[in-house]
Amino acid sequence: MINEKMYALGAAPSAIRQLFAYGLGRKAEIGADKVFDFSLGNPSVPAPPQIAEAIRELSELPADKLHGYTPSQGSASTRAIIADDLNERFGGGYSADDLYLTMGAAASLDICINALTVPGDEVIVIAPYFPEYRMWIEAAGVRCVQVNARESDFQIDAPAVAAAITERTRAVIVNSPNNPVGTVFSRENLAELAEVLSAASEANGEPIYIISDEPYRELNYTGEPTPWVPSIYPNTLVCYSWSKSLSLPGERIGYVLVGPDVTDSRRVYLAVCGAGRALGYICAPTLFQAVIERCIKAPVDVEAYVANRKTLTDGLAELGYEFIEPQGAFYLWVKALEPDAQAFADRAKAHELLLVPSDSFGVGGWVRIGYCVAHDVIVNSMPAFKALMEEYR
Amino acid sequence: MINEKMYALGAAPSAIRQLFAYGLGRKAEIGADKVFDFSLGNPSVPAPPQIAEAIRELSELPADKLHGYTPSQGSASTRAIIADDLNERFGGGYSADDLYLTMGAAASLDICINALTVPGDEVIVIAPYFPEYRMWIEAAGVRCVQVNARESDFQIDAPAVAAAITERTRAVIVNSPNNPVGTVFSRENLAELAEVLSAASEANGEPIYIISDEPYRELNYTGEPTPWVPSIYPNTLVCYSWSKSLSLPGERIGYVLVGPDVTDSRRVYLAVCGAGRALGYICAPTLFQAVIERCIKAPVDVEAYVANRKTLTDGLAELGYEFIEPQGAFYLWVKALEPDAQAFADRAKAHELLLVPSDSFGVGGWVRIGYCVAHDVIVNSMPAFKALMEEYR
Repeated sequence: MINEKMYALGAAPSAIRQLFAYGLGRKAEIGADKVFDFSLGNPSVPAPPQIAEAIRELSELPADKLHGYTPSQGSASTRAIIADDLNERFGGGYSADDLYLTMGAAASLDICINALTVPGDEVIVIAPYFPEYRMWIEAAGVRCVQVNARESDFQIDAPAVAAAITERTRAVIVNSPNNPVGTVFSRENLAELAEVLSAASEANGEPIYIISDEPYRELNYTGEPTPWVPSIYPNTLVCYSWSKSLSLPGERIGYVLVGPDVTDSRRVYLAVCGAGRALGYICAPTLFQAVIERCIKAPVDVEAYVANRKTLTDGLAELGYEFIEPQGAFYLWVKALEPDAQAFADRAKAHELLLVPSDSFGVGGWVRIGYCVAHDVIVNSMPAFKALMEEYR
Repeated sequence: MINEKMYALGAAPSAIRQLFAYGLGRKAEIGADKVFDFSLGNPSVPAPPQIAEAIRELSELPADKLHGYTPSQGSASTRAIIADDLNERFGGGYSADDLYLTMGAAASLDICINALTVPGDEVIVIAPYFPEYRMWIEAAGVRCVQVNARESDFQIDAPAVAAAITERTRAVIVNSPNNPVGTVFSRENLAELAEVLSAASEANGEPIYIISDEPYRELNYTGEPTPWVPSIYPNTLVCYSWSKSLSLPGERIGYVLVGPDVTDSRRVYLAVCGAGRALGYICAPTLFQAVIERCIKAPVDVEAYVANRKTLTDGLAELGYEFIEPQGAFYLWVKALEPDAQAFADRAKAHELLLVPSDSFGVGGWVRIGYCVAHDVIVNSMPAFKALMEEYR
């Protein structure tokens, strides 16, 4: 009578969203300062002041100029400015015509998956991975093939990817800086992956693409820029969003980049346009297209996350927790104190610590702590983390 | 290698968008005042001043309050205000929980189609119909079944709908005020359809839904409010957008309403949420959710369209054109002066008149004139319409 798959997706929101909803209720119940909600990737750093200034300036423009339809791929002037910025930072010789503006990284990823695959194809994800990857892949009738990251350092296990590739493999989703682990895949690691994919593309007689999900590109604590994936593997489609870098997650503005070095780049670009159309997208929000055009150089404030990261990792290390030292993004990947991550997260919840168990990211035994919260939340959560650790001693 | 269907959708944009793109190029070539572009439904009336005021006020709020994620169904306070407004105007006893905010009517429709159908099902459209209906329906693997409107008055031909219903029929898309014809389906006409659908639902043993596409609801020149479809047929999902009423087409803000009288309303609502998730939607743009919350009572400026409509219909009638007197929306449906609408539109183009041929709306022999343009465009286009008519004499 209705589509039961869609019903199931609506009735059981992601574990992250469920925990976030629980946290809102719990805060209302016992007070916001008593609940340590590390569930969601909602940036605590406010958008830079340039954004509000741009919005105010734009709101003075004639209204018919401001809110009208843009072409479906986005305003030509906004795309040109983004291309210039990418060329300055990464080279690549990009033009406005290589960019398709979207409603954020989720839209970008869903569009790329639908553009590159037909039902029965396969897309590889590197576990642990953002849970919605599997949902979008499977919604397209495509098989989600999970390849675990290396246990030692959570970099990509290129030989394992090689072993997972079949004739039906169309793409690998790469997410660096990584959600949920916080790793940045090194240039060497990406080069290993590139070698595997180049060989497999040749064997298959058609390209295997990288879909590079990069909302955390600028949130990098290594002192080096995040390696630019298309410079390592040309058959890369870049999915970007200003949600995290400019703290605009609700405004839904991002892009897909199909550079000139992508095989059959014009055909792939048009398939991206077609997938956007089929998924019901008309154009990215017009006002925020104009805001991005004016604010592309707005500085990304990483310092607050650097401070959060230090307080959190120092505190947890002292208490005896094991975790992966984060190189980017704003997540800490912490070893659960028992093998069952869900059971551990449930016990943490009793201390008002809202940690996302690793199961929905495709692996067992860990939890994700989103540290894009007010600094105080981290400081004040330490007694709870201490009590939780003591329970396991 | 890529998805060829998506490629085809990207490589051949809709006839409307193609004509619009041609118009932009032609204006650059010979001057904007020499081209009479009636192709696109981009409102010429600016957004009411309340919108800019709300944006400016909101931009003074702390940035972390303003641009964050909302729940995927939209901010609870915005939904509550919309529900109150609907209750005031139409009754129905709606609550915030019946509303799912979307990125405009296109998103709403694609979401409803995906929520209500599985591949192999059928959805009925009333021709002439907005061409993207067919695209979204077919992208979901569903059969688009076309039923022509009555020839006499372009109201719904309820007996013809009855004849087209099968066991696989899941929904009928109704669009009133209508794009492209400008008709408003009367209460009596909708009641006839409701009777047919009720009987067929009973025979099928499961509901056939109306998906009511209502972006033009407030653009009505009949002196009577547009009949509220759920009050006539309870199994109606309403798809709304502020694109046309508040002239915000690029900002992508609208909703799906699943009222309490819909059969299994909670299950249908959750399927809507699930379809939004599967299509890559995260939440409707946050700033414009807040704008709508503040501007829900902003007056809709119909007067400019009333003036355009009068000048256009008076002028064309005097020249001898036949058309359907528009009762709503901002389109005029004009009989082509030869049986082949495309050939007629091509000859119009030679006079710099950009008219959309009826073929992509599912019927032959007519053209659509979008009169949401500056009044001068209509006045200045009259000599071209005259010359075109003379060619056929």
